[in-house]
Amino acid sequence: MEKIEKKRLEALRVAMAENDIDCCIINSTDPHQSEIPPAHWRGREWLTGFKSENGTNGIAVITENHAYVWTDNRFFIQARMQLEGTGFEMMPLDGPDAIDLVDWITGNIAPGKTVAIDGMTFSVEEAQDMNNRFKDCGIIFRADFPQFDFIWVDRPARPLNKLFVHDETVVGENVDSKIARVLDEVGRMDTDAILVSALDDIAWITNLRTAGDISYSPMFVGYLYLDVQGSRVLFIDEEKLSDDVNAFLRRYNIKVEPYDCVTDFVSRIPKDTRLLLDPALTAVSIYNSIDCNVKFGGEGVARLKSLKNETMLTHWRTAMEKDGVALARLFKWIDEEFAKGELTEMAIARKLRELRLADPDCVDESFAAIVGWNGHGAIVHYEPTYETDIPVTGKGLLLIDSGGQYIQGTTDITRTIALGGEPTKEQKHDFTLVLKGHIALSRATFPKGTRGAQLDILARQYLWNEGKAYYHGTGHGVGFFINCHEGPVQIRMNEIPVPLEPGMVISDEPGLYIEGKYGIRSENMLAVERWKSNEFGDFYRFRNLTLFPFDKNLIEWEIMTQEEKAWLEDYHREVCSRLSPLLSPDEAKWLSDKCIDS
Amino acid sequence: MEKIEKKRLEALRVAMAENDIDCCIINSTDPHQSEIPPAHWRGREWLTGFKSENGTNGIAVITENHAYVWTDNRFFIQARMQLEGTGFEMMPLDGPDAIDLVDWITGNIAPGKTVAIDGMTFSVEEAQDMNNRFKDCGIIFRADFPQFDFIWVDRPARPLNKLFVHDETVVGENVDSKIARVLDEVGRMDTDAILVSALDDIAWITNLRTAGDISYSPMFVGYLYLDVQGSRVLFIDEEKLSDDVNAFLRRYNIKVEPYDCVTDFVSRIPKDTRLLLDPALTAVSIYNSIDCNVKFGGEGVARLKSLKNETMLTHWRTAMEKDGVALARLFKWIDEEFAKGELTEMAIARKLRELRLADPDCVDESFAAIVGWNGHGAIVHYEPTYETDIPVTGKGLLLIDSGGQYIQGTTDITRTIALGGEPTKEQKHDFTLVLKGHIALSRATFPKGTRGAQLDILARQYLWNEGKAYYHGTGHGVGFFINCHEGPVQIRMNEIPVPLEPGMVISDEPGLYIEGKYGIRSENMLAVERWKSNEFGDFYRFRNLTLFPFDKNLIEWEIMTQEEKAWLEDYHREVCSRLSPLLSPDEAKWLSDKCIDS
Repeated sequence: MEKIEKKRLEALRVAMAENDIDCCIINSTDPHQSEIPPAHWRGREWLTGFKSENGTNGIAVITENHAYVWTDNRFFIQARMQLEGTGFEMMPLDGPDAIDLVDWITGNIAPGKTVAIDGMTFSVEEAQDMNNRFKDCGIIFRADFPQFDFIWVDRPARPLNKLFVHDETVVGENVDSKIARVLDEVGRMDTDAILVSALDDIAWITNLRTAGDISYSPMFVGYLYLDVQGSRVLFIDEEKLSDDVNAFLRRYNIKVEPYDCVTDFVSRIPKDTRLLLDPALTAVSIYNSIDCNVKFGGEGVARLKSLKNETMLTHWRTAMEKDGVALARLFKWIDEEFAKGELTEMAIARKLRELRLADPDCVDESFAAIVGWNGHGAIVHYEPTYETDIPVTGKGLLLIDSGGQYIQGTTDITRTIALGGEPTKEQKHDFTLVLKGHIALSRATFPKGTRGAQLDILARQYLWNEGKAYYHGTGHGVGFFINCHEGPVQIRMNEIPVPLEPGMVISDEPGLYIEGKYGIRSENMLAVERWKSNEFGDFYRFRNLTLFPFDKNLIEWEIMTQEEKAWLEDYHREVCSRLSPLLSPDEAKWLSDKCIDS
Repeated sequence: MEKIEKKRLEALRVAMAENDIDCCIINSTDPHQSEIPPAHWRGREWLTGFKSENGTNGIAVITENHAYVWTDNRFFIQARMQLEGTGFEMMPLDGPDAIDLVDWITGNIAPGKTVAIDGMTFSVEEAQDMNNRFKDCGIIFRADFPQFDFIWVDRPARPLNKLFVHDETVVGENVDSKIARVLDEVGRMDTDAILVSALDDIAWITNLRTAGDISYSPMFVGYLYLDVQGSRVLFIDEEKLSDDVNAFLRRYNIKVEPYDCVTDFVSRIPKDTRLLLDPALTAVSIYNSIDCNVKFGGEGVARLKSLKNETMLTHWRTAMEKDGVALARLFKWIDEEFAKGELTEMAIARKLRELRLADPDCVDESFAAIVGWNGHGAIVHYEPTYETDIPVTGKGLLLIDSGGQYIQGTTDITRTIALGGEPTKEQKHDFTLVLKGHIALSRATFPKGTRGAQLDILARQYLWNEGKAYYHGTGHGVGFFINCHEGPVQIRMNEIPVPLEPGMVISDEPGLYIEGKYGIRSENMLAVERWKSNEFGDFYRFRNLTLFPFDKNLIEWEIMTQEEKAWLEDYHREVCSRLSPLLSPDEAKWLSDKCIDS
């Protein structure tokens, strides 16, 4: 069956030909390098038909005769399914068969030909890297091709949702204090000013949020300019500002300018200004408009944002309790509904959303819930849709990865449960290997300076010992009522040169995926905290934040050590004691059965 | 007491003043970036009095009013002792109080002043980095100050030892094949020629060795030039070449040129030649003489060298057996001599050397043996000398880290034993934590692509869990009858972007150091080998090479798992069965007592 995307691809090729472009590269992000851009910037999805609410990791490459979407191993299966009949084919961004996108282009596009991008949706870093590599091959590279202006007639408008203030009593720091710390960073970098493009950084600095601009994150679309002379300018569509928010902005001397004026504004920054820009988060088109001195850097803001204060961590405890309550109600409901034989993945996802949003402090889910039954659980970032939904009946494993955006903190949790009777020996064994890894990372202690890549093996070791592996990251930073995926710290196989520091909050989510059969993942959120200091140095450890039991029916107790069993028992006891008072007697009884050994 | 070094420092300051130099930086290496340079290039030691046979990690900085030696934490204690009265003071290169050398200079030398080095003893990389940083501060940087030409009157000559051929039946590959593989690498890098400066690379490519040029490594001083047109030029002092070696070189079409002609030779390489140079291993003075196109790279040669073939690994088994025999004899002798109360650290080191060299295939030790009794064991790279030697009497822990250069392979082993009665609870506990880490790394299995920094925590985890730590690397590559410390692979906390590959041989040497009390280290050598391939990828594991028992009197059995005990039992059984046939009945009985539980 031919899909509508084929027509769009044809239209794009016409636009390319009219603009003398031989190859077009299309990114999945917006001018702020958002992981989940607003609909206005979701042209790559509209064009190719490859859709994913969680992490739109896909880059399209179109030439006269080829059309590909590069994506990573989390999406291989999904991308192949969705791209069928669109005229596009999938290319692997990683894994053993990985093909480098630029290598492919330089191998298939002759010297003298032109490759073009929309410079608003590629970062300075990405564009410069591509430019260098294309130049080496004699290929012309242009960053001025806003391809969707030519072909996307019914393009959605920019989001115009109203902002609200994230209460200072919850975030523990006012805007003046945050701006002062950001300007310290600006000074430390020998610069005078900073243009902040990343929406989570802007939301963090301004203590402002909205609902609806970005799916699953209460950030808003805008830019923020700060300088050491005291200028504070927020570039934003003015329809987004209520009287309250305007008053709040005035209180902190933040001037408002129209969103579209940012390019013009940066082009007029006095020449002798030293402007700090994060090359990984700033659009190359913005950068190309600047006339003053630019210094690359500014990851310091992300680092400041990632260090959560005690006020935030205290409120996060409340968010975790609210989330645990929603999950207890969900899994109890699943137990009951499963018996009736009418459950589907989407029904579970809908129920979960309903239960989370029943709490007025939960403004959204923190990402599209992953509800994967058996084979669907093996699709790492699977999300049930009308096309893919299947009944959750029979026997097997159900993987649910989900989270909520609570005023008191963002949550992200994965649990895998067995339904329909005793799980197989293999399922229990694999689940236990993953759980052992989860516990090992959770219990880790480490000296100051330790980076994620050093700890990562703790979560993988039991799988590797049996020649099994998962290839996604083990842990990502989690924002505080902002992005569920937050930089700069990560725990993953590749080197991220950022040490773990007290106050950072990170996920712990090893998994295992048996294609076509089942997926397993166990995820909690952990906060780095000080542990001890002595003649050997300063040592840190993790404090567990998440509250929900692991499925004990899936545990092969014989391969659990005494320490692991004790950890699990303590954890389940805490879950039970903190959630029970918030549940009905029936619900509390259900939870207690899941937590406490009879 | 004033030492002779004070006079040398004065002479240097006179030379600096005469050459308009305000600050002089002196490296500890030779024009080949050797870790242990020949006496001819040991000027930094001669000048400062800070000496160490193992890893001469020290950089001297001299200004009109200051004189410092920067060194790393392994040498803090030793450097402070040795620098007393020399006019020099120690500066920490790492650790919590680390001071960056260039930062110190830019903070203490005014703009417009001149900093100078001898460009033959700094790599291109080091010199360019310093040059950039000094330029930013307006400081003049010169690489043309061979300071020792002015002040070192009784400088030793360059070594003129005779070369010999490392038999092809042992190394498993002839020179033509190696050169072909190096030239493949040259082509892969889009270049036409390569200048090899690293002595271990040259020894590996040419299958030539010597004894005496470099302490503890059978490499020889020279340069090797290869190009795709077939030129093969060895720059070497001709006194080093016997008729046999000259015939060998002729057989492989390797032309000989005088050592001193290399700078002139590279200056005459045709302009359009693309020359591959390793910026980390080539002297900046050589680089500055070159007129043709230079491409930086060439680590590929080190990688080729690090992948040992099965012939080498088979011979390494023999080397390990020979080494195990020497160690069995040594430790049996220590047991006997200790009772007499007349042992000293140096006596043990001498006996060990004698026992190793008793085997005609052992041409040297692979580094100066570290024999540290109690507090001396806590000095990580301690080496007993006449000044530091102490009696090994009373009660305590003895740490011996040593190795041999056998024709059949280089060895490197550390054992820590208790002498004089039952060790303390703390000693046993610490020893067992280190041993558990050693075993965990040794048993590791991991997918293709895994780097050392990912595995490193396996060796440290049990220490970290108790707030203890060591700060040296866990493992270094080991050469085959070349350098005991060989690149590029390492297992350490910091990121080294080199994956472990089958054929690489690496040490596994966690430790713990209680200043003033005792040091513990347990070290074996491991070879990476293929394990299994399946739908999850290709997995590797380690094969243990070293053969000698760990001291069972130092094990706290209660904290050893069943798996760890089984590993140890299997290991001791293998040690016993492979070494016993090579020992006298008495020695075999002694070894069996150490290995097998009664």
